[in-house]
Amino acid sequence: MEAYEYQLNLKNLFPSALWGHPDQEIVYKKNRYTLESFYERISKLAGALSDLGVKKGDVVAVLDWDTDRYMMSYFAIPMMGAILHTVNVRYPPDLVFYTMQHAGDKYAIINKEFVPIIEKYAKTFDFIKGWIVHADNGEKVETSLPRSYSFEDIVAKSGGYDFPDIDENATATLFYTSGTTGLPKGVTFTHRQLFLQATSNALVGNKAPFHLNEDDVYMSLVPMFHVHSWTMPYFIVITGNKYVLPGRYDPKNILELIKNEHVTYSFMVPAILYMLLTYSEVDKYREYLKGWKVSVGGSALPEGLAKLAESFGITAIGGYGLSETCPVLTTAVFNSRVKAMRNEDERRYYRISTGIPIPFVNLRVVDSNWKDVPRDGTSVGEIVVRAPWLTKRYYKDPQKTEELWKGGWLHTGDLAVVDHLGYIHIVDREKDAIKSGGEFIPSLLLENLISNLPQVGEVAVVGKPDPKWGERPVAFIVPKVKLNKEKVLDFLNNQVEAGLIQKWWIPDDVIFLESMPRTSTNKIDKKELRKMI
Amino acid sequence: MEAYEYQLNLKNLFPSALWGHPDQEIVYKKNRYTLESFYERISKLAGALSDLGVKKGDVVAVLDWDTDRYMMSYFAIPMMGAILHTVNVRYPPDLVFYTMQHAGDKYAIINKEFVPIIEKYAKTFDFIKGWIVHADNGEKVETSLPRSYSFEDIVAKSGGYDFPDIDENATATLFYTSGTTGLPKGVTFTHRQLFLQATSNALVGNKAPFHLNEDDVYMSLVPMFHVHSWTMPYFIVITGNKYVLPGRYDPKNILELIKNEHVTYSFMVPAILYMLLTYSEVDKYREYLKGWKVSVGGSALPEGLAKLAESFGITAIGGYGLSETCPVLTTAVFNSRVKAMRNEDERRYYRISTGIPIPFVNLRVVDSNWKDVPRDGTSVGEIVVRAPWLTKRYYKDPQKTEELWKGGWLHTGDLAVVDHLGYIHIVDREKDAIKSGGEFIPSLLLENLISNLPQVGEVAVVGKPDPKWGERPVAFIVPKVKLNKEKVLDFLNNQVEAGLIQKWWIPDDVIFLESMPRTSTNKIDKKELRKMI
Repeated sequence: MEAYEYQLNLKNLFPSALWGHPDQEIVYKKNRYTLESFYERISKLAGALSDLGVKKGDVVAVLDWDTDRYMMSYFAIPMMGAILHTVNVRYPPDLVFYTMQHAGDKYAIINKEFVPIIEKYAKTFDFIKGWIVHADNGEKVETSLPRSYSFEDIVAKSGGYDFPDIDENATATLFYTSGTTGLPKGVTFTHRQLFLQATSNALVGNKAPFHLNEDDVYMSLVPMFHVHSWTMPYFIVITGNKYVLPGRYDPKNILELIKNEHVTYSFMVPAILYMLLTYSEVDKYREYLKGWKVSVGGSALPEGLAKLAESFGITAIGGYGLSETCPVLTTAVFNSRVKAMRNEDERRYYRISTGIPIPFVNLRVVDSNWKDVPRDGTSVGEIVVRAPWLTKRYYKDPQKTEELWKGGWLHTGDLAVVDHLGYIHIVDREKDAIKSGGEFIPSLLLENLISNLPQVGEVAVVGKPDPKWGERPVAFIVPKVKLNKEKVLDFLNNQVEAGLIQKWWIPDDVIFLESMPRTSTNKIDKKELRKMI
Repeated sequence: MEAYEYQLNLKNLFPSALWGHPDQEIVYKKNRYTLESFYERISKLAGALSDLGVKKGDVVAVLDWDTDRYMMSYFAIPMMGAILHTVNVRYPPDLVFYTMQHAGDKYAIINKEFVPIIEKYAKTFDFIKGWIVHADNGEKVETSLPRSYSFEDIVAKSGGYDFPDIDENATATLFYTSGTTGLPKGVTFTHRQLFLQATSNALVGNKAPFHLNEDDVYMSLVPMFHVHSWTMPYFIVITGNKYVLPGRYDPKNILELIKNEHVTYSFMVPAILYMLLTYSEVDKYREYLKGWKVSVGGSALPEGLAKLAESFGITAIGGYGLSETCPVLTTAVFNSRVKAMRNEDERRYYRISTGIPIPFVNLRVVDSNWKDVPRDGTSVGEIVVRAPWLTKRYYKDPQKTEELWKGGWLHTGDLAVVDHLGYIHIVDREKDAIKSGGEFIPSLLLENLISNLPQVGEVAVVGKPDPKWGERPVAFIVPKVKLNKEKVLDFLNNQVEAGLIQKWWIPDDVIFLESMPRTSTNKIDKKELRKMI
């Protein structure tokens, strides 16, 4: 008789969770689950997929907003030994097609809202053996898609599923990430990686300034197709917190959920926070936003936005990760020195930074000779990492994998400095870096400063080719109220005098836009901005 | 180029810890370390051991109280790839010898206080290639032990150590556990097991009623030879809390440490809590004990002791584990239903129970047909478990290993019931169970009731062979003040009338003792009590 070989797989998150907090709430619109009833649904969904023919190793796509059925798929598909492909539904149809074909998807769970697009190209999707269609409120969906099934019908008929004990190194999830050039690259994550990333995220919630406990109500505002909603749907199984699913992102609906479900903790990119706090009716929700704890990642948290959040009584902190890193690597929780600071302006500097590594992350900021840069706040290096949850390879792309893992460390392509308290500050994406006269101009620092101008809504600084200097910076601004170039340049000149920036960092031009071009994950699209120059 | 294969080893706990909380305090007597300076000492100790000849796979013994040097060994030895043998220094010399020989110890780090005993038997220990001797305050130790070295001298000469990346499944620790019969059995744990047990313990601290955060000061009062001090020395590396080492256990010293170092959270067996709260000068420390959070394991937490703790403003909760389980399996944190209770008497019932499984533990209470017992608070079954940190084998004992892992679940040998809220209540160790007329009498329940008599200090109920009934219960009591048998029996008869116990559970005899016989880990020794009948 041999000892049981415990696998760090998603199934093994459940026994202690179901025992310890069976009545944990999971909420989507009118559907209210306990963890116990939710787990039953997971089991029935897996049974239904198995009845259709889904087997171990099959890739199953999901095209959906952030719904309860999506969240069931997060568990049911990997726990059967199949692979969950979280399709980026904000891609144009040709990229949706490309990623689904490249992934080798065999089945797809699809929300009614995405059916019309797929119907248009139905023939090209002939590799899909079954479309499992659903709509809110149990509404029947009429579709011309071949081999289509009603989600609710097949789940109702299902007898549940006895989940096997999946090897922790089996692939659980697959999704695509856009590079600067070329086609999206697929990244995969194993059960073990999700298990450990979820665990580390669960550990970090207890740190200042958040001090989360079982009374907090969580809602991730990172789309479920975007790096596992930063694993919040997974780690709430460990922490036992009430979890609210926002569906399609709509500012009014999100604010209503915060109010009615008493949401206290969320993840999001800066653009979502900006959207909510500049929403026309936001003042009606002031009292419910007070005390909201927000972790911002995906892009840097601009100081201006952080101050706007403070004016609502919201505490926002920075964080950082990539699609390739599951994603979370750092978060700007307080170390003892920052905690001891009494001045909020001083604390804010650290709070909105890239932060410090979360448990189990081995992170370095290294120069081109692999030497750790000094912690002086000015020496720039690349962030390279080791952690238990980094993608091991780009799907079917050995060459890019080799670049990613050069020297045995995952290369983030992000340039950063480290200050004397150990807080990391990303100064640029390597690909967004502005090199002028042989030296880097930190675009994120400029953006941060400009974001403090009260007239500025959003700002991005990019490099423009220059015959003399190689590149020169140009600032793009979405103003809140009337603003002109001179005012911006005056402001920056004052910052030079104050010793905060160098004279030669001041942008050559300031361009005003009505809105920023965005990537499918709501980041500002600097590629598009560069095309406008 | 391949992706880095991250190992869940002890070394990998440090990069994020040293980055996030380098100034975390570790305190032993006058020695005050930061995590950073402590890590340097770990590295120097490993260098010193390597200089002596310690190699990967070597077993290195430690004989010590709970000191800073012991804690360095907790890391330095496994992180070099060697195996830390935490010798039970409360064993008689022949068992110390037996376990060290059976373990195949090659080197030993030894506190001055244990040198005289070893010197007496020096010849029999000829398998030890090096004795590394130390004393508090850097005092030089004179010894006749052959091949002996001064800890401080060799560490001072060491140039540090570049820790390799140990396979997570390599053995990290080894120690011996006493069974009911026969010689102690060795149990081993791997890096991965310690990593994951520490992680789960770190996660559970945030639950009600404790809600630990970075301001809490930890001190384990579980000896470091006793199942890794329940991994507190490991998990404080994750949580970043100040950690206080108590040295040799002395009530006055412990109370002084609680006062001077502001200790707020501790682990211990009931006997230690009883010792502290009945210490002659305890009243002088009342104000410092207020708010102390205590997790009690090793034996059940008696209701009387829990109430005594409450009278000091201490919150004590139960917990459970075995030497074979690293050790923690359950802890009596509050689920939502218990948290909602407003009456402390009601909450106490759950708070002092065996508790609920900690994260990642898959626990069952099963009858002899492997069926889970109903959650009725009366159906008795054996606790069997799966978790990522259970010992895979008894060291060099395949037969006992097979019994331990019968059916692919680790058999705890503990009999328990589960109540309707999911809280586990151990009613007996299988080996301590009293079977009378073919039915079990729950000795722990009787002990718990008797502990409520204000005259009772400590109590234990054991089975006495009986020609008619098989066994009949006998109660042993250490009274605080004068008490006689009639008073105890009257009290129990009242409990029968109140419907709390069965008439036939009442002990046939009550025996008064001045003190309880104890095992080396301070549990009441029921084997010895049975010999007294």
